Amino acid sequence: MARNNTIRLYDLVLASGVTLSPFVWRTKLALKHKGFEIDGAPTSYMGIRRMLDGSYRRLPVIEDDGKVVPDSWDIAEYLDATYPDRPMLYRSQAEKNFARFLDGWMWKGMIHAWFSCYTLDQVKLVHEEDRDYVLDAHQNRIFKRPLEEVVADREQRLLEARPLLDPLRDLLTHSPWLAGDEPNQIDYIALGNFLWAASLASHPPLAKDDPLMDWLDRGFDLFGGIGRDPRLYPLAA
Amino acid sequence: MARNNTIRLYDLVLASGVTLSPFVWRTKLALKHKGFEIDGAPTSYMGIRRMLDGSYRRLPVIEDDGKVVPDSWDIAEYLDATYPDRPMLYRSQAEKNFARFLDGWMWKGMIHAWFSCYTLDQVKLVHEEDRDYVLDAHQNRIFKRPLEEVVADREQRLLEARPLLDPLRDLLTHSPWLAGDEPNQIDYIALGNFLWAASLASHPPLAKDDPLMDWLDRGFDLFGGIGRDPRLYPLAA
Repeated sequence: MARNNTIRLYDLVLASGVTLSPFVWRTKLALKHKGFEIDGAPTSYMGIRRMLDGSYRRLPVIEDDGKVVPDSWDIAEYLDATYPDRPMLYRSQAEKNFARFLDGWMWKGMIHAWFSCYTLDQVKLVHEEDRDYVLDAHQNRIFKRPLEEVVADREQRLLEARPLLDPLRDLLTHSPWLAGDEPNQIDYIALGNFLWAASLASHPPLAKDDPLMDWLDRGFDLFGGIGRDPRLYPLAA
Repeated sequence: MARNNTIRLYDLVLASGVTLSPFVWRTKLALKHKGFEIDGAPTSYMGIRRMLDGSYRRLPVIEDDGKVVPDSWDIAEYLDATYPDRPMLYRSQAEKNFARFLDGWMWKGMIHAWFSCYTLDQVKLVHEEDRDYVLDAHQNRIFKRPLEEVVADREQRLLEARPLLDPLRDLLTHSPWLAGDEPNQIDYIALGNFLWAASLASHPPLAKDDPLMDWLDRGFDLFGGIGRDPRLYPLAA
């Protein structure tokens, strides 16, 4: 059980070494919430097939004293089930349902909108060995046109996308964290989605006076400033 | 404290006597969840100003042994705070946040879409004394065109609106109720929104094989079949 209080985290990172995957970000926050040290095993998209006998196609995967657990949802369940004496990531099935609903809503709205604004950043920022794969996936399979065209009007689209987050702003007028007085996995999932954006956002999506920034700042300050990596872009300007 | 275990509920009803307001529906379910008998005080829109010295503009309002509490959100808080020994409507602030987020999402999506499909039903079904008020509000202030035109293509629009509810369908593959193994106010809020629709839906919005129907059927069966009033329309056909 977590020798030396440490759990290994296989992490999908950019060439700079900073985490890209929103699913890894939420898992990082979850591991810290449970009080573990993280033994980071960063890799590229191509590297996923070179690790753990090529058994996995997606990250995160954690390894806890030999036990391997993939999938950020399953990892959160595993951590709560295996370490119930440590701070819980969820207090009820309703909270898990909230997390799932909120995450689905963010993917359909914010992430969908922002993804097309930062596609070219992603191609530029991934590891050299990932570049052709990401370019092909985005240009030929997702957008089916040159990514320079896709991002051309992004400043306008980022402005127009801001109201998409109003329901989150409204919620944060009712409690300091999405989970109440203290953050839990509900916040970490949402924060992880914003940290994904911060890994790519060469043009900031939000305004400095956005009421979301208070929660984002508090979230990025958690666990010794987990979202304060200088390789991340600011989300507001 | 709830003499005879009974709480008075001021209720906004249609001419048939069946509850219209989604906020009253959720409060009815909440009162039953807390184990109270309901002393119903049904009224019309016009009647709201004749009750309780005309102090309130909206329903529900409850009266618990002389203590008057308006607003469905505040009523739920009041019930949990005053009767913590009875089944709780929420177990955490995160669950309240989920309820608020889910409700906001339903209003922007499903209710917005369905409201325009059932506007003419509402005009027809309200109390005689409410008819001019509702007709004026809907025709002149909300839609700004004849309601016959607004509802003309509703069968098609109801079909097209069905995918709006996919996130709810997805959630219900993960647990039997939105709140987990047992329903709480999260479910009651969502069910109350569907019961609003059932009070008006002369053309059913859903298909009989909609996976939502299992949850809706279980929800409408609660508390001795609270949603099985023969004056309600079926939501699926």
